[in-house]
Amino acid sequence: MKVVIIGGVAAGPKAGSRINRLCCDAEMTIVEKGEFLSYAGCGLPYYISGVVKERKELMSTPVGTVRDSIFFQNVKNVHVMNHTEATCIDREQRTVSVVSRNGGEQKLDYDKLVLATGAESVIPPIKGVDLENIFNLKNIYDAERIKEMLGEKKALNAVIVGGGLIGVEVAEAFHEMGCRITIVEFQSQILSLIDPEMAVLAEKHFETKGVKVKTGTKVVEFKGDQKVSSVVTDQGEIPADIVVLAVGVRPMVKLAREAGLEIGSTGAIAVNTQMQTSDSDIFAAGDCAEKKHIITGKACYIPLGSTANKEGRVAANVICGINDAYPGVLGSAICKIFDFTVACTGLGEKEARDAGYDVVTCLSPAPDKPHFMPTAKLLFLKLIADRKTRKLLGAQATGPGAADRRIDVVVTAITAGMTVDQVAHLDMTYAPPYSPAVDNLLTAANILRNKMDGYMKGVTPAEVCAMLESNKDFTLLDVRSPAECEQMRIEGSVNIPLGALRKRSGELSNEKPIIAFCKISLRGYEAALILKKAGFKDLSVMDGGILMWPGKIIQG
Amino acid sequence: MKVVIIGGVAAGPKAGSRINRLCCDAEMTIVEKGEFLSYAGCGLPYYISGVVKERKELMSTPVGTVRDSIFFQNVKNVHVMNHTEATCIDREQRTVSVVSRNGGEQKLDYDKLVLATGAESVIPPIKGVDLENIFNLKNIYDAERIKEMLGEKKALNAVIVGGGLIGVEVAEAFHEMGCRITIVEFQSQILSLIDPEMAVLAEKHFETKGVKVKTGTKVVEFKGDQKVSSVVTDQGEIPADIVVLAVGVRPMVKLAREAGLEIGSTGAIAVNTQMQTSDSDIFAAGDCAEKKHIITGKACYIPLGSTANKEGRVAANVICGINDAYPGVLGSAICKIFDFTVACTGLGEKEARDAGYDVVTCLSPAPDKPHFMPTAKLLFLKLIADRKTRKLLGAQATGPGAADRRIDVVVTAITAGMTVDQVAHLDMTYAPPYSPAVDNLLTAANILRNKMDGYMKGVTPAEVCAMLESNKDFTLLDVRSPAECEQMRIEGSVNIPLGALRKRSGELSNEKPIIAFCKISLRGYEAALILKKAGFKDLSVMDGGILMWPGKIIQG
Repeated sequence: MKVVIIGGVAAGPKAGSRINRLCCDAEMTIVEKGEFLSYAGCGLPYYISGVVKERKELMSTPVGTVRDSIFFQNVKNVHVMNHTEATCIDREQRTVSVVSRNGGEQKLDYDKLVLATGAESVIPPIKGVDLENIFNLKNIYDAERIKEMLGEKKALNAVIVGGGLIGVEVAEAFHEMGCRITIVEFQSQILSLIDPEMAVLAEKHFETKGVKVKTGTKVVEFKGDQKVSSVVTDQGEIPADIVVLAVGVRPMVKLAREAGLEIGSTGAIAVNTQMQTSDSDIFAAGDCAEKKHIITGKACYIPLGSTANKEGRVAANVICGINDAYPGVLGSAICKIFDFTVACTGLGEKEARDAGYDVVTCLSPAPDKPHFMPTAKLLFLKLIADRKTRKLLGAQATGPGAADRRIDVVVTAITAGMTVDQVAHLDMTYAPPYSPAVDNLLTAANILRNKMDGYMKGVTPAEVCAMLESNKDFTLLDVRSPAECEQMRIEGSVNIPLGALRKRSGELSNEKPIIAFCKISLRGYEAALILKKAGFKDLSVMDGGILMWPGKIIQG
Repeated sequence: MKVVIIGGVAAGPKAGSRINRLCCDAEMTIVEKGEFLSYAGCGLPYYISGVVKERKELMSTPVGTVRDSIFFQNVKNVHVMNHTEATCIDREQRTVSVVSRNGGEQKLDYDKLVLATGAESVIPPIKGVDLENIFNLKNIYDAERIKEMLGEKKALNAVIVGGGLIGVEVAEAFHEMGCRITIVEFQSQILSLIDPEMAVLAEKHFETKGVKVKTGTKVVEFKGDQKVSSVVTDQGEIPADIVVLAVGVRPMVKLAREAGLEIGSTGAIAVNTQMQTSDSDIFAAGDCAEKKHIITGKACYIPLGSTANKEGRVAANVICGINDAYPGVLGSAICKIFDFTVACTGLGEKEARDAGYDVVTCLSPAPDKPHFMPTAKLLFLKLIADRKTRKLLGAQATGPGAADRRIDVVVTAITAGMTVDQVAHLDMTYAPPYSPAVDNLLTAANILRNKMDGYMKGVTPAEVCAMLESNKDFTLLDVRSPAECEQMRIEGSVNIPLGALRKRSGELSNEKPIIAFCKISLRGYEAALILKKAGFKDLSVMDGGILMWPGKIIQG
């Protein structure tokens, strides 16, 4: 069996290695346009920041063997043609035409073909985008050029265009290298894969580190004489010694399209769960292939290294006659922003509503360990569920606390179709150095259950903010202690500490709605219950408490 | 509705708070023998070590309010009788007799009764156990007495009897306080909730910190004149200024037994999934109640604060007429041992075999992040699955790496009845600061799939060790690089680096079994496949590689 694999970064080498393990007799060739194989593209921001010291670490095995052509030949039994580009697939003849760097052309026969052509950075059609010192960060060459420039001069003015995952990772890396950074984002928030009230926490964190975040801002022009010197936006001009474009990637599908393979609605190569394209002898895996969303069942395009590896393995299994199927993705993502983690999975609130679910959400900010442990860190958790089926649809976590653990549990729970009731009873590991006795996730699941069962009516901080701004007549009841209120409070709120509420409820009017809150709104919830007992009618709780308040805070 | 709750530490106050939220009209009384309420018993080792500075932190809310009688009355609407012991339940009259510290007796009427009487430390019937400076660590009083003693004199000789969860936590706390520590464990390993090859890693880690671990050692006598001065074991005498007994806890069921309530086979109070005892108006929750194991469906006794909270909530829900059921536990546990985490869930290997499963296991030691990230730490992962259903049965993780995240994903997967195939495809969050592109758990799941599908035959390091000791005729093939072998190797092994194996396979005999390994046995697996292709017949791979080798290692 002859197998040709086009693309040598992630899905391709994965498929090749696995085929080698399964089929002794496969003759395999990897065709790679660049020089380097099987390198960790996701590690590039950490190479720029110096966290990763040497380039070769990104392309070596855990014991330090560089994954070069010789390695692939000797260990994986795969013939590697690097500096070689595939130019044409002849599906009838089952050949791939390739051209090497020195101009040599040849045709490779295949029985099975794997397309792992990856993705390319989107270059926005903006005036001046071709100026020097405007970079992408897609491969090692890009990283080398950026590194060289940052190395020669510190304290550069850097502008990152695009506040997605790569943009924020690059921002952190540039910060480590001493740059003054502005992130310019066209949308009204950075990290559009999380909901606005979660993204604002990340934006604020950036600002505490001195990174400027300009959302709702459109780049109009890059100015400069040969080299870029400023970025002109619809909100003003920003000086720039270096610019990184991080406005997204696009699947590389030219070869597939020209071969007449089906391209999906997302623009990526359409595949079935066996990773077969519309030609069952041609497989596609990794960033060039379309994904299926596990919850909606719809096509989506979420290119990630983790997915590429799984798809490469499934393609290899199927090629070798093993029954396997890739179920799809949940849109799980995570990134580090200085001392913060941002992680998410499943559907966002709006996405879930748009998909027709009867959405219930909760915001639960709390320490990720018992409050008496000095290692406890705050974690802001949001859950999204469907009232009808009580199933979890999504989760997002932001903050210095351990977000990965909670989100990965939700990944598993959503994949298994678990209800919030099942999640609330999970026997998660517990000891004070790791989590509170009732884990943040289980608490959040219980809040959802309370809401679904009608024990708690929630209002989001954004809704309350809007009510205040439009001068709605209601009581915003802060039940924290006077000492807490002295530190920070919301203008227009009334303070009655929870412990005094039974005695002092007479001070409140039953003629208008009461919205109770505290630091995280657990006491807010108890306050609403006390007032309900005292005969008050229109009661709700502000989700997430003052910790999630997006508006102005009076401090000191 | 009158509700009496006996026990004020975890499940009791949880039930009381929840009932208050659900039923405005409930009249609630908590009867607590001690002074303190709702304190974090699991935090006691961290109070001893000074990580937690003040006792009151263990019994306050996250914002610093101490949960005393006044707090419970004002906020939770619960009447608290502390320093008061329940002495008798009259089920016919529905009363509980209580005696307060000052001798006052009274009868409390109840409609619903919650038993949250907890557990008590087992005091082994050993000669001299009553000597001074021999302690338990069950409550705040114990912790205070220990703290006082460690405070006045550092560098004490401390002996911890029992190497379970509490024993190891206490050992770390005492180490922080400058003690010379010996853990004496009757069984052949510490932490009997994990398998021997995982426990040995924890034992070795203790030893690198200067903590002596004596397994298979029985305490015969405590010697001393008034105060303990040494611990006599069947393996010799150990000087001791202080001794902590951590040989386990026993549910407090006297009240329940005398009231004629059913006691389960484990010695704890039998309950149904609604937390009802054999009297449907009497509930039991927390450390006094029997648990159901989710996998086996059998009764078990695993007392944990996390479970107590969940059970207290379910009892409250049912008392208030809400449909709820507690599905049971998986035996999830976690503890911190200096720079190590030990975590587990589900069935251990032996337990799974004893329960009749066709057990497949794997050992996967690997960095918990990409090897190029300086924050990467080694994580030893063991999975246990059932060949027939392909379902995961258990998981254990040890090492400096992030064990909690992987084990909690397995908790969720086992609860949902997921197969290893489903787990291998989980869309876990990925970015280099958090995990490798293929997470350790997914890699381990794929190893299990390979074994189940017949692509890989594993032998455990312990089995190989035994084969060497009994002079079995086989080739132990080390395929690491010469440089790696120079650092450490296994006596009797033959080294052919993986990259040279295709050319040099002729050096090996096909007449005897070949067991291949490397550092973690990924290359060992590839070596077996290369040799299979070269015509070798009897091939297997040593699980976990040299990193999991339990025997002698030649170093340097």
